[in-house]
Amino acid sequence: MAKETLFDLQDDTPVAAKKSTRASKPTKRKSTGSSQARDISVAEFFEKNRHMLGFDSPAKALLMAVKEAVDNSLDACEDGDILPEIQVQISQVTPKTFLMSVEDNGPGITDTQIGKIFGQLLYGSKFHKLSQSRGQQGIGISAAGMYGKLTTGKPVRVRSKIKRRKAVEVLLSLDTARNRPEEHSKEEVDWEGKVHGTRVEIEMEATYKKGLRSVDMYLKQTAIANPHLTLTWIDPADEKIVYEAHTKEKPKATVEIKPHPHGVELGRLISLLKDTSSRSLSGFLQEEFCRVGPTVAKKIVAAAGKGLTLKSYPSRIARDEAAALYDAINDTKISSPPTECIAPIGEKLLLLGLRKEIEADFYATATRPAAVYRGNPFQIEVGLAYGKPGQGFEEIDDGRIKKKSRSEKVVANLVADADEPARLIRFANRVPLLYQQAGCAITKGVIQTNWRSYGLSQPKNALPVAPMAIIIHIASVWVPFTSESKEAVASYAEILKEVRLALQECGRKLGIHIRKGKRLQREFQKREYIETYIPHIGIALQEILGLTNQEKDSTVTSLEETLHRSRKF
Amino acid sequence: MAKETLFDLQDDTPVAAKKSTRASKPTKRKSTGSSQARDISVAEFFEKNRHMLGFDSPAKALLMAVKEAVDNSLDACEDGDILPEIQVQISQVTPKTFLMSVEDNGPGITDTQIGKIFGQLLYGSKFHKLSQSRGQQGIGISAAGMYGKLTTGKPVRVRSKIKRRKAVEVLLSLDTARNRPEEHSKEEVDWEGKVHGTRVEIEMEATYKKGLRSVDMYLKQTAIANPHLTLTWIDPADEKIVYEAHTKEKPKATVEIKPHPHGVELGRLISLLKDTSSRSLSGFLQEEFCRVGPTVAKKIVAAAGKGLTLKSYPSRIARDEAAALYDAINDTKISSPPTECIAPIGEKLLLLGLRKEIEADFYATATRPAAVYRGNPFQIEVGLAYGKPGQGFEEIDDGRIKKKSRSEKVVANLVADADEPARLIRFANRVPLLYQQAGCAITKGVIQTNWRSYGLSQPKNALPVAPMAIIIHIASVWVPFTSESKEAVASYAEILKEVRLALQECGRKLGIHIRKGKRLQREFQKREYIETYIPHIGIALQEILGLTNQEKDSTVTSLEETLHRSRKF
Repeated sequence: MAKETLFDLQDDTPVAAKKSTRASKPTKRKSTGSSQARDISVAEFFEKNRHMLGFDSPAKALLMAVKEAVDNSLDACEDGDILPEIQVQISQVTPKTFLMSVEDNGPGITDTQIGKIFGQLLYGSKFHKLSQSRGQQGIGISAAGMYGKLTTGKPVRVRSKIKRRKAVEVLLSLDTARNRPEEHSKEEVDWEGKVHGTRVEIEMEATYKKGLRSVDMYLKQTAIANPHLTLTWIDPADEKIVYEAHTKEKPKATVEIKPHPHGVELGRLISLLKDTSSRSLSGFLQEEFCRVGPTVAKKIVAAAGKGLTLKSYPSRIARDEAAALYDAINDTKISSPPTECIAPIGEKLLLLGLRKEIEADFYATATRPAAVYRGNPFQIEVGLAYGKPGQGFEEIDDGRIKKKSRSEKVVANLVADADEPARLIRFANRVPLLYQQAGCAITKGVIQTNWRSYGLSQPKNALPVAPMAIIIHIASVWVPFTSESKEAVASYAEILKEVRLALQECGRKLGIHIRKGKRLQREFQKREYIETYIPHIGIALQEILGLTNQEKDSTVTSLEETLHRSRKF
Repeated sequence: MAKETLFDLQDDTPVAAKKSTRASKPTKRKSTGSSQARDISVAEFFEKNRHMLGFDSPAKALLMAVKEAVDNSLDACEDGDILPEIQVQISQVTPKTFLMSVEDNGPGITDTQIGKIFGQLLYGSKFHKLSQSRGQQGIGISAAGMYGKLTTGKPVRVRSKIKRRKAVEVLLSLDTARNRPEEHSKEEVDWEGKVHGTRVEIEMEATYKKGLRSVDMYLKQTAIANPHLTLTWIDPADEKIVYEAHTKEKPKATVEIKPHPHGVELGRLISLLKDTSSRSLSGFLQEEFCRVGPTVAKKIVAAAGKGLTLKSYPSRIARDEAAALYDAINDTKISSPPTECIAPIGEKLLLLGLRKEIEADFYATATRPAAVYRGNPFQIEVGLAYGKPGQGFEEIDDGRIKKKSRSEKVVANLVADADEPARLIRFANRVPLLYQQAGCAITKGVIQTNWRSYGLSQPKNALPVAPMAIIIHIASVWVPFTSESKEAVASYAEILKEVRLALQECGRKLGIHIRKGKRLQREFQKREYIETYIPHIGIALQEILGLTNQEKDSTVTSLEETLHRSRKF
């Protein structure tokens, strides 16, 4: 996006191009009108607005960088049809800086592409396609490198190896004034034992902490949403955690789709008409969109009127005619877009992931059918994990009820305490979203759900209060993030609706479980009452009737048995 | 930011540049690795992510467009030292589309600049400066035009006149694939009675509604924050509202400043060193930063060590030496940045604006001294408007208390009802922020304030519940918005702190008022009890003591008087 020519116009006299390497260059002239207007490099823009990319504090920096690198690694493995094995390591370099490195077994990157992929904003392979992937904007990893350079002055180190070629190591940084990669060195290296893969290393000013919005949590959640991933994580204290893959099944390969006619705007339709290589309106409609065959094309053209025919030459269609065509498209019934472009995690694997990483008493999952917003297919999946082990009740062999015993496994703090709002775990295209929960459509969907009808308490306009984790995944060919940092999903009505429907499906199952739990709890209390008071009754009877100790004990036992039996019915 | 050369690489073989006019061009090839990676035009990026610019729903579109146009008009008038007179009109064109026009009396724009200002993203005069202005990114109005074109296919119409020149009218649109303006026509026109000014007209798909987040509300709030503005507003029903300026005092002219040394990152310091025209380290420090004179420069260089001297040649300073210099800068005490770059509204004018546009029982305002985040000066102002007229109590002449009478003025719904959360009215550089309240640092600051200590109720992690409007203004040379739509402020700790301090200042005054109000309310109730029960006591006394009616009445009166007197002390 860089500009070799920059403008600095006084009135209408163009002035010679000026060097513009400094974003906040001090000027002494007083500003008048637009006389100092000039181009802004997209990299300068994001350097100054780096909070839009998520780099607004040292506490968040490591998480953002790891996230971008891991996203890229997972996408690369999926593109290369490889079962991903990723290693993430963070180590402290100076009191203020950390080095993060992420290494994958992806197909590797050609050396001519390395610079642009890691050192240029708005460069990528996913933006111009409609298919599900983690990356979509071509900003992330370059932004992480830009932040590293900004705070430490040090370049990004990338090593990559393609099968049957030598590995290449490049030191590079992003030239912000031009938004272009600058390669400081490039050399062939030996990468012992590596067949193919990529490693990226960035040093940056940062702080490292554990907790709900940490690198640790991000990686744990990534393992839940990517059951086919083997992930090794070495933290700054050199502690090593390995998340083993619990399936060898790769996510369903997704297909790229054409845009759906109902998602196209009039302006875009006009430019599509102008730029198409089709020579007839009928051909245009069928080639540029999905779900349009000869019959639908015919219906649309007939509905449009304005003298348009199936053979009208697309680029000669005027604005008025295009407007009629646009209305006709929207008035014509067209099947929903194909959904083979989306790969949800699936109820079975989601449940497996939940059980493995979150300990709870009860689990429920639901996967909705695919739906569409602005012409883009998407799909919502939901999982609930309810109840902290050791806090529920269970029925044992003879109908007796006992408090559940706390299991030996370390209890993950992903399930909220009973008096806290439920923990919400959000995913978009299998990527955990840890920030901006309040501004996210997923959160709104949870709040809009009536949890009281499933037996939970829920303050007005808030998350339900329960010992529960709610997992929600949106898979889409284009996730509408609210900002470049990809932390929250924009509130399209269609997305909100699907989130609510999926939650209702799980909620009904949860309601049954909770009612049973409440019944068990009541029973448990009754039993406690019986066991507390019967002995006293026994003593009283002994006094009144003059029973022997033996008689008293047998009376108490038979009373207890009778009452327990009657309690059961 | 367009790219004439685009890349489409298969392995490492560069392929001829391809035309890329379509953002979501369908492709049939299966993606492998980064083989389809290519440049993304910034306009394509924002067309697809237009919710980041605020254009995510027809309900919001008009507001965003009006906001961007009015911001530009106000900035232009300030740059031209003109008392602003702005006319905003919205009219319905088709069932689905509206035309918005905004006309100002600004200095006008030269015809060579019109295209770039209205038809290119990331082009502007404010980005590279550190001074307070509404616009800062060079995105807004071009984005509005892009949305108009996308949804209606129609271009933007701009008319502008510079003093003593002919007016020019340009029809233009933004070519998204290239991020460049496309001028469809340009002609000189007569603009009767106009000395100078600019008008922009954009037709777009939209819905028009009144309410808390409407164009009406935005304009009303704009009038509060800009007491020097005369604003005429004609809505789609042809209703006309004129907000008269209530001062002829223009906001203090702000000065552009150089960056503060404590806000610079190591990476930026390194590039500044490389690019400076200064020939000595001492000169570099004094020329590139504010608040650095010979003495401070000397201190910094001495603290840096590493063999650096005042005469070291900047561009020959190595990374290690720069790192030492960076540490030295941050360890050296340097005065806060100058604050003449910021123009707050001021307590007096803010109060005037509040009284004029919001009817309440009690007002308080506070303006904090300027503070600094990431080296950028900013200033927080707060206003509170408390109590709905007709719902409070007042003390009258003889010490009696009565319910306040409802005034005749139309009660603005800016003050919340007593059982609602207080209404929060946010401004950044005098621009009302109507969306993303939950994700804004200003909101967080209000929530973090302990309102209970001022006599209000406040649920945990929520706004106080009270019949109150809270007005908060952040003025800064660079407002850190969380997204390009400029709807919320990022949560820098320094900003949160200043918001809290300003609220505490107003809160203390409010606390006194509320305590007085509560006392009056208690008094009023006591009086009511006296007046309710004394007559009954009179009747009882009459029966017991056999008083005449006259005796009874005089007893009642003297009892009432005695009790009212005692109540007062």
